[in-house]
Amino acid sequence: MGNVKGLDLIFNPGSVALVGASEKPGKLSGKILQSLRSSGFKGRIYPVNPAYGSVGGMECYPTISEIKEGVDLAIIAVPAPAAIEALRQAGGKTPAAIVVSGGFSEIGEEGGRLEKELKEIARREGIRVIGPNCMGVYDGFSRLDTFFITEERIKRPPQGKLAIMSQSGSFALTVMDELAAEGVGVARVISYGNKADVDEADCLDFLADDDRTGAVAIYMESVEDGRKFVEAASRCSSKKPVMAVKVGKAGAGVSAARSHTGAIAGRYEVYRAAFKKAGIIELEGYEDFIGGCKAFGMQKRSSGRRVMIITDGGGVGVGLADACAEMGLDVPPLNEYVKEDIRGVFPKYVVVGNPFDLTGSVTDGMFAEALEKTMEGDAYDIAILAPMWGPPFLTDELVEFIAEKAGIVKKPVLICTPGGEYTRKRMGLFHKAGLPVFSTPESAVRAAAALSKGASAGAKAGGGIYG
Amino acid sequence: MGNVKGLDLIFNPGSVALVGASEKPGKLSGKILQSLRSSGFKGRIYPVNPAYGSVGGMECYPTISEIKEGVDLAIIAVPAPAAIEALRQAGGKTPAAIVVSGGFSEIGEEGGRLEKELKEIARREGIRVIGPNCMGVYDGFSRLDTFFITEERIKRPPQGKLAIMSQSGSFALTVMDELAAEGVGVARVISYGNKADVDEADCLDFLADDDRTGAVAIYMESVEDGRKFVEAASRCSSKKPVMAVKVGKAGAGVSAARSHTGAIAGRYEVYRAAFKKAGIIELEGYEDFIGGCKAFGMQKRSSGRRVMIITDGGGVGVGLADACAEMGLDVPPLNEYVKEDIRGVFPKYVVVGNPFDLTGSVTDGMFAEALEKTMEGDAYDIAILAPMWGPPFLTDELVEFIAEKAGIVKKPVLICTPGGEYTRKRMGLFHKAGLPVFSTPESAVRAAAALSKGASAGAKAGGGIYG
Repeated sequence: MGNVKGLDLIFNPGSVALVGASEKPGKLSGKILQSLRSSGFKGRIYPVNPAYGSVGGMECYPTISEIKEGVDLAIIAVPAPAAIEALRQAGGKTPAAIVVSGGFSEIGEEGGRLEKELKEIARREGIRVIGPNCMGVYDGFSRLDTFFITEERIKRPPQGKLAIMSQSGSFALTVMDELAAEGVGVARVISYGNKADVDEADCLDFLADDDRTGAVAIYMESVEDGRKFVEAASRCSSKKPVMAVKVGKAGAGVSAARSHTGAIAGRYEVYRAAFKKAGIIELEGYEDFIGGCKAFGMQKRSSGRRVMIITDGGGVGVGLADACAEMGLDVPPLNEYVKEDIRGVFPKYVVVGNPFDLTGSVTDGMFAEALEKTMEGDAYDIAILAPMWGPPFLTDELVEFIAEKAGIVKKPVLICTPGGEYTRKRMGLFHKAGLPVFSTPESAVRAAAALSKGASAGAKAGGGIYG
Repeated sequence: MGNVKGLDLIFNPGSVALVGASEKPGKLSGKILQSLRSSGFKGRIYPVNPAYGSVGGMECYPTISEIKEGVDLAIIAVPAPAAIEALRQAGGKTPAAIVVSGGFSEIGEEGGRLEKELKEIARREGIRVIGPNCMGVYDGFSRLDTFFITEERIKRPPQGKLAIMSQSGSFALTVMDELAAEGVGVARVISYGNKADVDEADCLDFLADDDRTGAVAIYMESVEDGRKFVEAASRCSSKKPVMAVKVGKAGAGVSAARSHTGAIAGRYEVYRAAFKKAGIIELEGYEDFIGGCKAFGMQKRSSGRRVMIITDGGGVGVGLADACAEMGLDVPPLNEYVKEDIRGVFPKYVVVGNPFDLTGSVTDGMFAEALEKTMEGDAYDIAILAPMWGPPFLTDELVEFIAEKAGIVKKPVLICTPGGEYTRKRMGLFHKAGLPVFSTPESAVRAAAALSKGASAGAKAGGGIYG
């Protein structure tokens, strides 16, 4: 930790100054204050605003420079020109700042000049800067939360092992909200926007040595310094799985990325080659990103790509097998010896194979038994279980049965359970039991593919404390 | 209607005999009786079972032949050998039967012999047979419901214009349940299992002339008579959109399909060519199937493939543009004249383009205004609106604003709104307003692609009453 000067303070500051602090509910800074205070952040908060003597019952300072003590992190949420002035005043007071303000390079030439100035001050004053045009940090451990969208609309995920890095603030928000709904925990979330100073390579350098982080997922519109990125990513991926989606691939997507964060998206093939070189697991888009986060957030990497499919609905079994074939996973048949052994245990109407079809007469116990019997040997690396809830003997206890056996087989177990109201309620039970659950065959297989790409991508160094 | 002898009676019978009728809750026939009685089916029900004098307060007959009147449809849910006997006894009494029972060709040679016998009796007695090894029919209009899974676990969709044809019963159930949750209505759902007699071509022939059916979606594991299928599908697709997914594409999927419904899946390329020849919109898998059903169930076909993207989250805009490029849709830039016109109406920070990024300062009215302004001319065929719910000025009234403008622009409007708890609740509001809504950029674009494939596939004859 602390290898990148100031970055540990960005995630875990003892104190923060909020420049632009206000109690007006419509203001960004007001919402940031609300996030900081409701998140459970334990550090000291210094409101900074020349217009107030106190904010939210706390003493308010006219400028950062007038705070007597040093401050670990400045959060700056005032219009662009004022943000530059605030950073200047923070010189000597703080080693790190998050500049939330927009109005920089993403709006064109004039903003570009302001951003250049911001960068020069940061370098001169020795302040590491996140942003501008960003949401900043949500930290699952220190509880620092600088996101200016409150919990009513966007829920925060629980504490966990994922780190999310995003150029887009709205993407970071949406992912946090999805992960919260799915019960997937995070260690660090960082939205760095225009990355005038701290870029993805700096973050990867920090996360590589961060014991709280077990896996990293990156949303990327552009990378400026390719060599630096590949070096940092390689170092990080040798210790833990690193996934990335590169958006703005072609046509309208490229120009959309440019007007969004001022990014020059570049040719996708170049990124793909860089990902490969750096041992990064390439994700194809939003669905893949969420799938990868759920898979690595709740399960460990897979040591191979051989999938066992167990279901009580023949149709979804075929769909899963098709999706595996399309996404480069194997669905090897059950070995004849194991098959004979299994046939004795199950009723005659069960289709013993891969997919293993327990049919509509399925019970909770049959799912558990099939999981253990097929996964106990070395024939398969990942199990996908697809319970369809129509059959009358399946009960909510299925979840415990599967969770128990999943603990025994010690290989990734994913759940695929498409359907409506009754089924969607059951998805929550699987989440609570720590099993990643998907609502379509394709999404389950996408996640399995990500886990198995992890097998080659980051296996060398053992994967840190999370394996 | 009535061009396929007996098929209109299968969807809309005046009376049904339920062979194997029982009040025992564990028996399939007991559940079918429950479905028939709770669905709102208005026709007469004759329970048939030699073991009872009455079932559910209704007179019970020992055999079909002892019912005095003629019966429009026999539903047979007894073990395979008894099912054959029941069909024999139905000769002269009924022109149509659904054989729910399993134990036929899907279990191997012995079952294959029984199925051949079943088929011979059907031909000899002039009975059109659905099944065996199937769920039968759910009809959104006559309210006939022969599915033996009750509503507690699998909800039935409302009345609507979609017809669903499925070889797999569990697939049909899952799709019904999903569509019910999404508020997408159906006209006819048919699960035909082993299709010993009535096959997909017969169903397509019926649905082609069925005024209730505005679009058809087929789940297919195999087709035996390719020429007959292409003929019927061509006739149907000249009148209304016909979509199909073919599963069992390769490797494990093929053998899974075989043990599921005894299907010989065949080479996928052959199916793809047949789809093309028949004007069928090819769907790639489960996600595509659901997307196609939502799109054609709630919107009309698109006349082209030019997509306008409107969002308040830059990241999702880029993701949508990327997905369009990958799935063969165009995202043409806004014409300069329109752009100037629009710039006057919107605040300066809005990124006027395609994607159109209303940014975090968005209001309900801005979404509506952007939709109307960009779609009123002839520059775009489909609009995808992607509201991210973080921005504080978006309210639930957004849904009405968009629905109203969608009515004015008279082109397909799809909603893409990824997120967690708050967002997922808003999805229901869009459904109620009749707007198809998707939780990922990819799924929204997949549905748009299906609608625009419909443009070339079925445009010739005007698309029947649903256009």
